Amino acid sequence: MFKLLKKFKKSNARLGELKTKHGIIKTPCFMPIATCGSVKSIDSIEMEKLGANIILGNTYHLYLRPGDKLIKKFSGLHNFMNWQKPILTDSGGYQVFSLAKMRKITEEGVSFQSHIDGSRHLLTPEKSIEIQRNLGSDIIMVLDECAPYPASKKYIKESLELTTRWAGRCKDYFEKTQSIKYKSQTKHKTQRALLFGIVQGGIYKDLRKKSAKQLLELNFDGYAIGGVSVGEPSEKMLQVVDWTMPFLPEDKPRYLMGVGKPEEVVSAVARGIDMFDCVIPTRNARHGTIYKFKNKSSKLKVAEKQNKNFYEILHITNEKFKSDKKPIDKNCQCFTCQNYSRAYLRHLFASGELLALRLASIHNIYFYLELMKRIRNSV
Amino acid sequence: MFKLLKKFKKSNARLGELKTKHGIIKTPCFMPIATCGSVKSIDSIEMEKLGANIILGNTYHLYLRPGDKLIKKFSGLHNFMNWQKPILTDSGGYQVFSLAKMRKITEEGVSFQSHIDGSRHLLTPEKSIEIQRNLGSDIIMVLDECAPYPASKKYIKESLELTTRWAGRCKDYFEKTQSIKYKSQTKHKTQRALLFGIVQGGIYKDLRKKSAKQLLELNFDGYAIGGVSVGEPSEKMLQVVDWTMPFLPEDKPRYLMGVGKPEEVVSAVARGIDMFDCVIPTRNARHGTIYKFKNKSSKLKVAEKQNKNFYEILHITNEKFKSDKKPIDKNCQCFTCQNYSRAYLRHLFASGELLALRLASIHNIYFYLELMKRIRNSV
Repeated sequence: MFKLLKKFKKSNARLGELKTKHGIIKTPCFMPIATCGSVKSIDSIEMEKLGANIILGNTYHLYLRPGDKLIKKFSGLHNFMNWQKPILTDSGGYQVFSLAKMRKITEEGVSFQSHIDGSRHLLTPEKSIEIQRNLGSDIIMVLDECAPYPASKKYIKESLELTTRWAGRCKDYFEKTQSIKYKSQTKHKTQRALLFGIVQGGIYKDLRKKSAKQLLELNFDGYAIGGVSVGEPSEKMLQVVDWTMPFLPEDKPRYLMGVGKPEEVVSAVARGIDMFDCVIPTRNARHGTIYKFKNKSSKLKVAEKQNKNFYEILHITNEKFKSDKKPIDKNCQCFTCQNYSRAYLRHLFASGELLALRLASIHNIYFYLELMKRIRNSV
Repeated sequence: MFKLLKKFKKSNARLGELKTKHGIIKTPCFMPIATCGSVKSIDSIEMEKLGANIILGNTYHLYLRPGDKLIKKFSGLHNFMNWQKPILTDSGGYQVFSLAKMRKITEEGVSFQSHIDGSRHLLTPEKSIEIQRNLGSDIIMVLDECAPYPASKKYIKESLELTTRWAGRCKDYFEKTQSIKYKSQTKHKTQRALLFGIVQGGIYKDLRKKSAKQLLELNFDGYAIGGVSVGEPSEKMLQVVDWTMPFLPEDKPRYLMGVGKPEEVVSAVARGIDMFDCVIPTRNARHGTIYKFKNKSSKLKVAEKQNKNFYEILHITNEKFKSDKKPIDKNCQCFTCQNYSRAYLRHLFASGELLALRLASIHNIYFYLELMKRIRNSV
């Protein structure tokens, strides 16, 4: 499933290929987030043209609306949203812990109230896998407890033990349902779905080690580092990565959940991370915060130390762009830069035009995909 | 400028070609509305792919934001929004009378307060032409008073006399500024901008006649029927068309402003109208109201009597579309129908996803453009 192609000389950065039901993903990769079955304001055909190779679907949202059973009738999320490349789905846990109300965690699972209509639901490890199976996901995540930050060591310790037990139940249920045929127009019909475990342990070195070791025994197809990007500072997040990496096997992909800013992504790649997802490019785009490379080099320096020097941020709503005839980035090949000026984009934001959100999102997604390309060229 | 190609046998419907600075428009035609420099939620490249041959820009909105002087710096609206086909601009009058506050009409013009920031402005006939020149419009409209409906005959009479005097001033100023070179990447560099007069007169037959006759003396490039679609019923609107048409010359294009529903468009074509604009396709799309032809015929019956039988409306947010795998219209060649199902579109609306608005708008614009194509095929 995962092929390690190359290792960087100066750091732990690596180049790989991950084979899934819907095709091969080159790593390191970034996964744009299609929360409710669309990457906000962008359609699937555009996403493909942008060069995205994998997107992330949110189990919590899709379970509540339109419902995983409905999506199963469409032979999975790929067909429902007309996206024929790989999809990774999260477990639903993160949203249950951040969006849903009246949460109650028990050994069985987590019960919660929908943020949409207040209806009560119980998400168990088995249920999470079942939903992700119904969605037809290529990469399935285990259900974990996303502990808050900050939290006491005692809380985190008990939480990670529960997460490990849930991970075991996920694995069992995943294996049991592996043979079930899910209709899907796949290129790689013989390829099964992949299951990733999630290392927890908060900001405690020994607990991260403990979590990683316990999960390794369950032998997952890949390992994620979870419970970061929950409010801790950037340095803490990278420290957690440093603590965890030594225990993750070289021959499996490593996914840093919910990260992050461009410089965080680069630093994490230098530490050996292969996969990322983040709402930053699309959410920032909708607020007029636009990313731009400082030069048109096809490479960039991949080092552990955080470095923002390779890019800049344009606040496109700023007065100074009012009559700026240049595209966001004259070297950028994205649809927005090929067709529209900064002044036009600024005007669309100032006028509250819907088109602003789409054009800005297209550019920011392209920036992140280009960032990963430059990283891969440099490894 | 206007070439009458063919006249229908059974009605006054006609086929024509209108030559503008940015190319030839086949009539009867429908002009999607790009209020603030974009057809809401759709970009210019998509609009071209959809097959639109002309769009309408709103002078009031663009004058206030980003300002016609700024757009002039971009050599006109075509370059500012990257749309190289014809643009018709309205005079700004309609929005001053419907959106702006603290209006005061004098012989000189209409003073008003911006609905955006409360700033005071004076729109005169000359100012309206100047703004439209700065926008680089292909078809310029004269400033008229858009009288309310209902209004007394006395009010309408005085209003149309003012409108005629304003039309004369517009014509004078238009001629005076005709020789000024406006930089613009045009295909037809020798072609000048066109100026259309607007027939007013409310719902009074003699006043419509009077208005038409007065305007004809000024010899415009085309004639619009204004002051309809301001709240009067559909039959009244068509009656106004009937009263006005006998006085409009055969060799000039005729534009029915702000109309309308599909059956109104067809009935108006049968009465000899060549051009239409309306917010219906895009505004309805954003509310999930979707148009669909009942059959895949390339023609339709063009008759004066209103007939809704050729199309139906889907309220796509309806529960019944929840698991409907079909596209909106299996015979439709639009981007939305070629790629997405009713169920997916319904889901996007239910989830409040921005993409819903764009996909629905694309289809409804395509429907209106296809409607005009079927009409042209039938004439």
